[in-house]
Amino acid sequence: MTYPDDLVELVESYLGRIRFGEDSDVSPLTEAMQYSLLGGGKRIRPVLLMATMRAYGASPETALPTAAALEMIHTYSLIHDDLPAFDNDILRRGQPTCHVKYGESIAILAGDALFAEAFRLICERQEAVPAVILAVMREISEATGVRGMVGGQYLDVSGNTTSEAQLGLMHRLKTGRLIAACVYCGGLLAGVGGAELDNLTGFAAELGLLFQIKDDILDVIGDTAVLGKQAGADARLKRSTYASIYGLEKAQELARRSMLLALEALARVKGSTETLAVVTNYIYERQR
Amino acid sequence: MTYPDDLVELVESYLGRIRFGEDSDVSPLTEAMQYSLLGGGKRIRPVLLMATMRAYGASPETALPTAAALEMIHTYSLIHDDLPAFDNDILRRGQPTCHVKYGESIAILAGDALFAEAFRLICERQEAVPAVILAVMREISEATGVRGMVGGQYLDVSGNTTSEAQLGLMHRLKTGRLIAACVYCGGLLAGVGGAELDNLTGFAAELGLLFQIKDDILDVIGDTAVLGKQAGADARLKRSTYASIYGLEKAQELARRSMLLALEALARVKGSTETLAVVTNYIYERQR
Repeated sequence: MTYPDDLVELVESYLGRIRFGEDSDVSPLTEAMQYSLLGGGKRIRPVLLMATMRAYGASPETALPTAAALEMIHTYSLIHDDLPAFDNDILRRGQPTCHVKYGESIAILAGDALFAEAFRLICERQEAVPAVILAVMREISEATGVRGMVGGQYLDVSGNTTSEAQLGLMHRLKTGRLIAACVYCGGLLAGVGGAELDNLTGFAAELGLLFQIKDDILDVIGDTAVLGKQAGADARLKRSTYASIYGLEKAQELARRSMLLALEALARVKGSTETLAVVTNYIYERQR
Repeated sequence: MTYPDDLVELVESYLGRIRFGEDSDVSPLTEAMQYSLLGGGKRIRPVLLMATMRAYGASPETALPTAAALEMIHTYSLIHDDLPAFDNDILRRGQPTCHVKYGESIAILAGDALFAEAFRLICERQEAVPAVILAVMREISEATGVRGMVGGQYLDVSGNTTSEAQLGLMHRLKTGRLIAACVYCGGLLAGVGGAELDNLTGFAAELGLLFQIKDDILDVIGDTAVLGKQAGADARLKRSTYASIYGLEKAQELARRSMLLALEALARVKGSTETLAVVTNYIYERQR
């Protein structure tokens, strides 16, 4: 089996149809949002959500508003992360970053607006009973707040990540928590509950860790042309990474171990997990 | 009657008890969030929500999670608005602004985190049937996105607000939309629906306009010491305001007209609207 490009196409097409505002007065803002959102990529977060739906025989299409919202939130985090006050990155997916193209104030607002519009999309478009939609929003708001993405982003810029424990916490919050939320929300929308949701969470947490170790490795060995963003950014910013703390070889070993643990956790999940296994493998093998 | 300080105390005490993260690793981030959130003020947005509850005989306490969330969202917008890329303000409520005190990256993240935690608070703590909570979140997400607060913030920095129509749109989106959402959500949580919700909306829209006209006037005639922020910022930034487009005298006339229209709209509301009338008057009379 190969990466589920059918799910990528579903979400690409849905994202491309979203209209953020009819009002032409705000069109440079919505253009900046779309510029960053429609920049391509493997759409790992929406794919994870929809692959989880598929594992339980639920139609992936029914989760599209939430799938798109997760990609919008990821995009918002990239836009803010690229800002001069953070990584000061000029390239993303092979194109100028949002603030390079539109200026800093529009980039900050484009991130802010993508976050609000992501919640709006779930509230307005996601079909499910209100209690389930509310549970999805609870999970996503926690995954993006202090105990999730933004908390991790803070730890990353604070520089307090020199110990292995701190580095682990930072990655769990910054990347792992939202990756885990994608799988968890897929379970919620597919009607999964109880112990099986815990099984999914176990898999998702390990997957989030794998994703980040691999990201750190690619920043060292990756090629700017293939990555679509500047390689070596972590070293330039003197950030602690799995590669800098453990060394490249050990980091690669950790990635392999994390991949095996993720597949082991996935084996405890009762649904049909072929697609989720493929995505796990893709995350481990990816070159960008 | 005077301004409902009992409602202010309710929300102050609730805000003061919120813990954003037990994790000491992220404490400078949560400190920055609390620094900006607990800076005082008249808490107009939560008060409007709770005064609307009161108008229909519902207990204001039951709306506290949403009330606090609205203040957190307002605070997030102030933090981002004060950034160097926007107004570059150094004073807010008589204290250094968030980025002056904590640095730009922490200030951006504090705003981002307040937004996420606001949604989390509503999802986790607001007691009501899920369909009503979902309606509240739909309203707030729309009021803070492209067709609301962030869209208005964009128009403000874009400088495309030289005509009366553009200035009106900017103010309706930037300030009016969230002010209106407070009243609307108060109605939703009190169980109001149908035509009466429309009556509330009519009042709320006019109130939002009044608030902004008054803000523009205070920026010209206000005293930095009383305002707690630098007066004259609009002129320094060459922003179009009601004062710059209409002149001070006409702007004051417009504020008075807007106040009367708000009270007229409030007269169509069927609940016991004394507190809402007092808040309207306060917004008109305020010196900061």
